[in-house]
Order: sequence, then structure tokens, then C-alpha cells
Amino acid sequence: MTSSRLEAFSDGVLAIIITVMVLGLAEPAGTGWADLVRSSGLGLLTYLLSFVYIGIYWNNHHHLFQLHPPVRGRVLWANLHLLFWLSLFPFTTGWLTESRVALVPTVVYGLNLLAAALAYYLLEIAITRMPGGERLRAALGRDMKGLLSPVLYLLGIGLAFVVPWLGLVPFVAVALMWLVPDRRVERFLDAHPDTSADATDDE
Amino acid sequence: MTSSRLEAFSDGVLAIIITVMVLGLAEPAGTGWADLVRSSGLGLLTYLLSFVYIGIYWNNHHHLFQLHPPVRGRVLWANLHLLFWLSLFPFTTGWLTESRVALVPTVVYGLNLLAAALAYYLLEIAITRMPGGERLRAALGRDMKGLLSPVLYLLGIGLAFVVPWLGLVPFVAVALMWLVPDRRVERFLDAHPDTSADATDDE
Amino acid sequence: MTSSRLEAFSDGVLAIIITVMVLGLAEPAGTGWADLVRSSGLGLLTYLLSFVYIGIYWNNHHHLFQLHPPVRGRVLWANLHLLFWLSLFPFTTGWLTESRVALVPTVVYGLNLLAAALAYYLLEIAITRMPGGERLRAALGRDMKGLLSPVLYLLGIGLAFVVPWLGLVPFVAVALMWLVPDRRVERFLDAHPDTSADATDDE
Amino acid sequence: MTSSRLEAFSDGVLAIIITVMVLGLAEPAGTGWADLVRSSGLGLLTYLLSFVYIGIYWNNHHHLFQLHPPVRGRVLWANLHLLFWLSLFPFTTGWLTESRVALVPTVVYGLNLLAAALAYYLLEIAITRMPGGERLRAALGRDMKGLLSPVLYLLGIGLAFVVPWLGLVPFVAVALMWLVPDRRVERFLDAHPDTSADATDDE
Repeated sequence: MTSSRLEAFSDGVLAIIITVMVLGLAEPAGTGWADLVRSSGLGLLTYLLSFVYIGIYWNNHHHLFQLHPPVRGRVLWANLHLLFWLSLFPFTTGWLTESRVALVPTVVYGLNLLAAALAYYLLEIAITRMPGGERLRAALGRDMKGLLSPVLYLLGIGLAFVVPWLGLVPFVAVALMWLVPDRRVERFLDAHPDTSADATDDE
Repeated sequence: MTSSRLEAFSDGVLAIIITVMVLGLAEPAGTGWADLVRSSGLGLLTYLLSFVYIGIYWNNHHHLFQLHPPVRGRVLWANLHLLFWLSLFPFTTGWLTESRVALVPTVVYGLNLLAAALAYYLLEIAITRMPGGERLRAALGRDMKGLLSPVLYLLGIGLAFVVPWLGLVPFVAVALMWLVPDRRVERFLDAHPDTSADATDDE
Repeated sequence: MTSSRLEAFSDGVLAIIITVMVLGLAEPAGTGWADLVRSSGLGLLTYLLSFVYIGIYWNNHHHLFQLHPPVRGRVLWANLHLLFWLSLFPFTTGWLTESRVALVPTVVYGLNLLAAALAYYLLEIAITRMPGGERLRAALGRDMKGLLSPVLYLLGIGLAFVVPWLGLVPFVAVALMWLVPDRRVERFLDAHPDTSADATDDE
Repeated sequence: MTSSRLEAFSDGVLAIIITVMVLGLAEPAGTGWADLVRSSGLGLLTYLLSFVYIGIYWNNHHHLFQLHPPVRGRVLWANLHLLFWLSLFPFTTGWLTESRVALVPTVVYGLNLLAAALAYYLLEIAITRMPGGERLRAALGRDMKGLLSPVLYLLGIGLAFVVPWLGLVPFVAVALMWLVPDRRVERFLDAHPDTSADATDDE
């Protein structure tokens, strides 16, 4: 079995998460610019941040399955585990906004980022342990950004205890860092064009 | 006609159900840990339970169509029948949470689980009765988990009349039982690699 | 260009419409059976009716594109026109429920059914007028159910002026009539297996 | 890598945006025709306008990827950038309706249209700069409608300062202009049938 249905399902879930967050945007109470900024300004910024994060996960997810690893039970559940944490973004983003970036909601947002990063890492392990997964491991190489991200999330959680707003700085920094897309798999495929076929073909 | 469009549609519906449930999570009234636990703690747990159930159905649905049975009217409606009961999960989960696990909402949640299980069973029958369905029947063999689940749902419904919370124990137990993914179809395909092609090819 | 992306987009929209309606279900005010029936009983029934209608449209839509007609601008917009009317179902169903089946909401629901039926008919015309569309026209033959449905919708709208509830009878009758799936295209493909390939191949 | 997964994800997001807007439609306060017009009349019109705009973007998006350009990081993010602005439509449409077409909400709606047009233009540039993109550039030729649209959006924003309602006239005009679907790519493919294959084949 190939990974196409798993990708389609994940795409669906990610597409809904990214879109459903906009439903949480409070409509301005009045009809002026000041009302827009006061009621929805912060909400638009946190929506943008979470939108970028979901975009990053979609982007990387897509790279992870680009080599079409065989998909079995363990990978299916590791994938659902990742989707579970990502599906909480509308909730944690909403609370962060509603609280005007209070301490606990900022920490909870950081924990959500941390849990999603961990789940992604577990999914990566589950895939690379499948037969044929060595190719993906080789393609990924040393994942500096993947190692740095949780450290920065922890830093953000720590900074939130000083000033809650400060905790968002590392969260934004990680997002910017990942906006530069992950070229590793693409580079590997360019260098090893013969391995781009289905994993089952050449193992 | 192959089953791919039916699978894509089902994936879409399941992806939306799983994601839309998070919209039902009440945002904490305050900004502290206690507010999070009080307003959203139970909601997060019931969300997790229903998330796992939808994940299980997606997982098994996917196994059911892995042999690409021909899809005709009866199967289409049996599939929509299953999706109908699954689509009620956001509603029954929401009521269960809202009522803080009262008797009737717990029973209704159990009846929803029971109806979905019955609908899944009817879908299985509809598929195995199609030409080419014998292969799926052979692959499924004796479905112990499928037989045990409704019994445990009934047990949970019964226990709810003693103490409502107690009714959730069998519901959680069934979810855990299914988290171990269904290897039967995969095992059958491994053992009979020649039958993995489209049903229309070898009938 | 084949019709696959149009089908995928339509599937997505239909999957969302069918699922989003459940968000309109009012949660019971209390925790007893009587509360469930009073707050959500009618909502569950109208949800079921609209669910079946969306299911019917998905089912027939799928038949319409089974012969993979070439898709050009006119067909794309005829399809979006159909999706527009179908997307109003959550709104008209919600009002019907909220008003406890009052006169005007029942008439509006009937007009929504009528508009969707007309849009479907226009889509059918748009497809059969494309090069290669004669095969679909031949497959469809005389569409008795398609002709009878709008007549019954008009009957329902008329009956609503007598007693609003009575207007729902023909709406339910049409849904039951269509539950028996449309075998015409399937039968045609069975009789003419050589035409099941892509339209561009044999024109 | 081909563009199919990017298209599927975009389709999902657009399908959800288009459907989710209907959730913003206020249900009539009473059960008469006057209630329907008063509570939902304006909402239905603005919903229709935004529905058509999302339909136009889906339609054109689909044309942009019809030549299956290779998809790399830059294109992925240009696409997500477009989806971000489109995902704000439910929000800006809702405010426009809620305010009964006040000045600032009309300007904001116009700015949303402008930002989406700019994002689409950036996506077009990102694709045509990829290897193989010259074919798309050749197919697109001189994009009169694409150049005219932002000018009309600016005109609408300007007119809104005179009378807010007047600002909607150019917005409706642009939608009508685009309803005539973009035949350029289709015409190019008809004229150069040999180039319809995957970009990687002939470069």
C-alpha cells in the first residue's frame, strides 16, 4: 500500500484546521479602523502565526512522504497522533488571543508547539524504521532545524514567565526559520534520481 | 468503477468530523491553569476519545477498501449510512461534555458508538456480497474485535445506569483495543501477493 | 483536461456541507431524554433529510462524471452554480428547524430544493453539449425521476400553504425515491464496455 | 515532484472557505419573508459575491497548474500566501454584512480583494520562473483582466469614500468580468497539443 490515501486524509485535516481558525476571529464591535484593530488586530496576528505553522507542517509532511514510504499501522497512528496536536491549534490560538497573551495561554500555546514537534519526530522515526526507510533517513541527514525548534519552544515558554509577550518571540523566530523550505529531500532526489521511484520497487 | 472517489469523499467527511469537534471545545473562562482544567479539561478528554474513534473508523475503512472492491449503489448508501452516524459524534460528544457525563448523554454516546458499529458491519456485508467480495471475506476471517465491540458498548450503556462515569470505561477499552491496528488484510495481502491487483483484473 | 479535479473539489464542498450541518444542531438544554427530544429531535430529523439530499446529489454527481466528460469553462461554472445552491442547505435547514416548520421557512426549503434540481439539470445540459457528451445523453435516456422531482417540490411548496408540515411529505418522498440509486449509467457501461475509457480516446 | 498534492490541498482549503462562509449567515429572527430579507438578505448577496470570487480563484488556480509545473519551496509558499488572503474572506465578508456596508468594512473588503490579486500575481511569477515555466508564460500572454482587476479594486475603494455602497459596484463588475472563464491556457493547449505532457518530459 502506498501513502497516497494517508496524504489525502492529512491534507484534508490540515486544510480544515488552517481554515477553521478564521472562524475564531472576533468580528469588530464597531465599523471603524479602531474597532478593527481593537477587536481583531491581535486575532489576525495570532491567526497568521498559526497559519504559518500549519503551512510549515503541511510542507514538511509532504516532504516526509515524497519518497512514498510503505504505510502500515504504526505509521498511520503516528500520523494521527501528529494531526491530533495540530487540531488543537484553533483552540490554543483562540485562548491566546482571548486572553490578550496572558501567561498560561502563552505557555499552553508553546506546549502545543512542543507536542506537535515531538509527534512529528515520532512520525519521522516510525517512517524511517519501515523497510525502505533508510532512504528517507539518508535524505534527511542531520536535522538542525528539527533539533533547534523544541529548544526555542522551551525558551519561549521560559520567557513567557518573565513577560508573556516575550514568549512569542522565539515562536515567531522558529516560524521564520522554517519558512525557508526544507530542501534536503529535494536535494537528495536531485542527486540520486534513480531512487525517486516507489520504495517497493528498489528494495 | 473503482472505489477511489468513494474513499476520497469519505476521507473528506472524516477529516471534517475529526476537526470540527475541536470547535465545540469551550474556551477557558479565565486565564489560569484552573480555568483551563475547569472549562476545557473534560472537553479535551472526550475530544481525544472521539478523535481516536474517528481515527479507528478511518483506519478500518481504509482496510475495507484496500482490495478496491467494485462500488455500486448499495455500497455507496451503506457507506453514507456509516458516515451519517459518524457525523453525529460532534453532537453527542458535545452533549456528553456539556452535561459533565450525565446518565442520558452517556447512554446516547454509547448508542452512537453502537449505531456506527452496526453501520460498519452492514457496509462490510454490502462489500463482501459484491462480485469479487469473497476475497475481502477471506481476508477478514473471523472478526473477534468487531464482534466484541458492540458487546462492550452495551456493557458501557448498562454500567452508565449504575454510575454514568463507569459507562465510559468500556468505551475507552474498545478504543484502546482497536488502537492496535487491524493487520488481517495486510497479512492476507502479504500471503497472497497475486491478489493485490484490482478486483476486476482477476475475476 | 479530465474531470478529476472538478470532482475532487465538488467532493470537498459536499463533504463539508454534509458535515457542517451538524454544527447547527442545538445541544439539549438539559440532560434528560425529554430535553434531547425537545431541543434536538426536530433538528435531527431535518438534518437527516438534508444529509440524504446531499448524499443523493453526491451520488448522482458522481454518475454524471463517470464517463469523464471533458471539462471546460461552461461546465466549471454550471458545477459551481449547483454547489452554490447546495451550500445553502445548512442555512435553509437551520431556519426550517428553528421555526419549528413554519410556512415561509418550509417554502424556502422547497425553493432551495427546486433551485438545486434546476442547477443540476443545467449542469447535465452543459456536459451533454460538450464534444463527447452524446454518450452521456445516451446513457441517461429519459430521466423520469429527474422530471418528477421538481413537480413534487412544487407540490410540497403548495401543500405548505395548507399545513406547513404537510409540505415536507413530498420532500421526504423525493428523497426516498432517489435513495434507490441511479443505475442508468452503470447499466449503459455494462452494455457498452468499450466506451468506459476516457472520452478523449474515442472521439 | 508534480503539482497534484498542492492542488489537492488548495482545493480542500478553497472548498472549506467557500462553504464555511455560509455559517456566517445570520438566521432570520422571525418566520416571515420580511424577516428573511431583513436578517439575511444582505448576507445572502455578499455571500454570493464572495462565493463567485472564490470560484474564480479556484478556476484560475486550476488553469495555472494545468500545465503541471514542477513545484518547489518558493511555489509552495507563494500558494500558501494566496490561500491566506483567500481564507480571510469569511471574516471580511462577515464584517461587511454586519456593518450593513459601512465605509471601513467596504474598504477592508476591497483591500482583501487587492491582496488576493497581488498574491495570485506573485504565484504566477513564482511558477513562470521555474524551469519549464516559459510555457505557462507563453500560454498566459498579456493578462488584460489580471491588470484591470486591481485598478477596479482601487476604484471601488475610492468610491467607497463617496458612498460606501458605490464601492461595491466595481467589485461586482470584476466578478462578472471573470465569470467569463479564462480560455488562454485551454487555447494554448489546443494549439500546441504536444506540450500538454508533464513539464519534466520535454525540458
